[in-house]
Amino acid sequence: MSTLPELPDIPDLRDDALAARLQLRLDGKTKPQGALGELEALAVRLGLALGTDAPRLAHPQLLVCAADHGLAARGVSAYPPDVTWQMVHNFLAGGAAVSVLARQHGVALTVVDCGVRHDFTPHPGLVMRKIAHGTADASAGPAMSGAECARAIANGREVVHALPGNALLIGEMGIGNSSAASLLLARLAGLDIDACTGHGTGLDAAGLARKRAVLREVLARHADARAPLAALAAFGGFEIATLVGAVLQAAEERRVIVLDGFISGAAVLVAHALRPHVLQRCIASHESAEHGHAAMLRHLGLEPLLRLRMRLGEGSGAAVAWPLLESACRILDEMASFDSAGVSQRSKP
Amino acid sequence: MSTLPELPDIPDLRDDALAARLQLRLDGKTKPQGALGELEALAVRLGLALGTDAPRLAHPQLLVCAADHGLAARGVSAYPPDVTWQMVHNFLAGGAAVSVLARQHGVALTVVDCGVRHDFTPHPGLVMRKIAHGTADASAGPAMSGAECARAIANGREVVHALPGNALLIGEMGIGNSSAASLLLARLAGLDIDACTGHGTGLDAAGLARKRAVLREVLARHADARAPLAALAAFGGFEIATLVGAVLQAAEERRVIVLDGFISGAAVLVAHALRPHVLQRCIASHESAEHGHAAMLRHLGLEPLLRLRMRLGEGSGAAVAWPLLESACRILDEMASFDSAGVSQRSKP
Repeated sequence: MSTLPELPDIPDLRDDALAARLQLRLDGKTKPQGALGELEALAVRLGLALGTDAPRLAHPQLLVCAADHGLAARGVSAYPPDVTWQMVHNFLAGGAAVSVLARQHGVALTVVDCGVRHDFTPHPGLVMRKIAHGTADASAGPAMSGAECARAIANGREVVHALPGNALLIGEMGIGNSSAASLLLARLAGLDIDACTGHGTGLDAAGLARKRAVLREVLARHADARAPLAALAAFGGFEIATLVGAVLQAAEERRVIVLDGFISGAAVLVAHALRPHVLQRCIASHESAEHGHAAMLRHLGLEPLLRLRMRLGEGSGAAVAWPLLESACRILDEMASFDSAGVSQRSKP
Repeated sequence: MSTLPELPDIPDLRDDALAARLQLRLDGKTKPQGALGELEALAVRLGLALGTDAPRLAHPQLLVCAADHGLAARGVSAYPPDVTWQMVHNFLAGGAAVSVLARQHGVALTVVDCGVRHDFTPHPGLVMRKIAHGTADASAGPAMSGAECARAIANGREVVHALPGNALLIGEMGIGNSSAASLLLARLAGLDIDACTGHGTGLDAAGLARKRAVLREVLARHADARAPLAALAAFGGFEIATLVGAVLQAAEERRVIVLDGFISGAAVLVAHALRPHVLQRCIASHESAEHGHAAMLRHLGLEPLLRLRMRLGEGSGAAVAWPLLESACRILDEMASFDSAGVSQRSKP
């Protein structure tokens, strides 16, 4: 396999006529114009993403990509690396937050082993796409080779291609992966690493200072890894690279893509740098409490639906926001119009 | 009937031991402490409201109280008064926003005619508790008598008492009722009327200026209506008074109370002025785009779950936020603990 992945074309979905039709349908519903606020903007966005003035969401799929990070050995996380594989078991057993939330909303959960430092036995809901037992330490060299990066992206594309439905919610698990996300944000958005680096799963002040120092060192070590794929290979991780492929595939198949927090957002950041029109299919579920996530969303030009100070990852924020997407579609589909309900329009001013 | 309504005692629910037990359960779940943000705070609040460290929500009821306002004749709304009864039909036919959203989330909808200027024929889901065909014009005298106010409050108590479940979502419909809510907020929170008065269903700038001038006049006319019930009778409306009774009854029965926007919030404002501990049962679903709602929530000390720039009323915001309350309970109920899932705790700092 070449070290350059095959990337799909992602066309521009701009369609002013469709946008106008969607707005007209919303304005005819029995409510003052604009009174449903962000739900109306969401309805228009979903209609444009799916290419119809009557969008319906079908068989939503939440993909949790998991992998380990060599950089974790440098003490950048509050939790030991074993938590990655332990949490994979927890996802599959239904006891993790994302398991509970996905179940609540009827969202199917698929866990992908993209490079966890553990050998899993086969399990329903677990897809094996392991590249290696964790990435290499990015402070000593690239986290992965170009060929590994390309393979992870191809994996993500294949996994999504095999899933039903027209909506992909993305999540992740990987001790150390907020570091990789911080590095990608700093590099691809051109921000100072301190502005991109937060407490992750709960570092104290000393831990955060150490993490920032390590990340500054890693960034300097890979000063020439400026292109999106070079940065992705330099910083990792396998779960982020797999999610890049998943996002590109979902965009090509014209699925709605629901972001979670800081780490899944880093995958979208890379996908966006490769194929800018990906963003037209993306919904930002929430702004997390992780330092840097607000800057990431600003860089992407995405407005989050929720601000609940969540900072768990896994896809938990995407799952919590899911009913809002459903609501937006149902408003278009099920609400009566002024005409059909015999309700008077507003008085002439 | 006396002109003073019978009001239930609403005890203080403060229970530090229960709050500590709830926090301990949350902290044992497989996630970094506090990583689910506002969902965790919500779980604690629901546990305290229901008096258990394993809160479960059962048979949620959304009550839409509808009535007309004599003050509407002064041109304070962008819509004609007939929209009130037309929307009642729309609620019952399932075509209004709140009908769609309540159906989505399995929330039962009950519409109460508290004083609509229209005679309805009986319909499943419609409860008849009409006090009169709309309130009197508050700019010419009190919107209702003390006896009418007491009867509306008693009606709200009876209606809730007859409903199953342990959660009450409140909504309303009534052309002109953002004026009544603005007047109640100005009077009970001691704020200038301009800070409490917004565009309602969509007044233009001239309409808003006219509305503010009218409300300033009404406020001056009822300068002595300072006590909560006197202010409620002076300004109206029947749907707000009925909701005051509904909120007090729900609080007495220890149901969770889910606020909607500016007008249902005015009912909670009155209930809180009468029985302050009511607030311990209250969840603010969202901050609406209506000018004055943020100030109202601040006055009540409530933090909204959502900020989606909605401004529709009906209970639509309460319905949209409902799944978050479910999520909070499910996190407590269904998530694995570090012990039960065999997941490692954080490293020692």
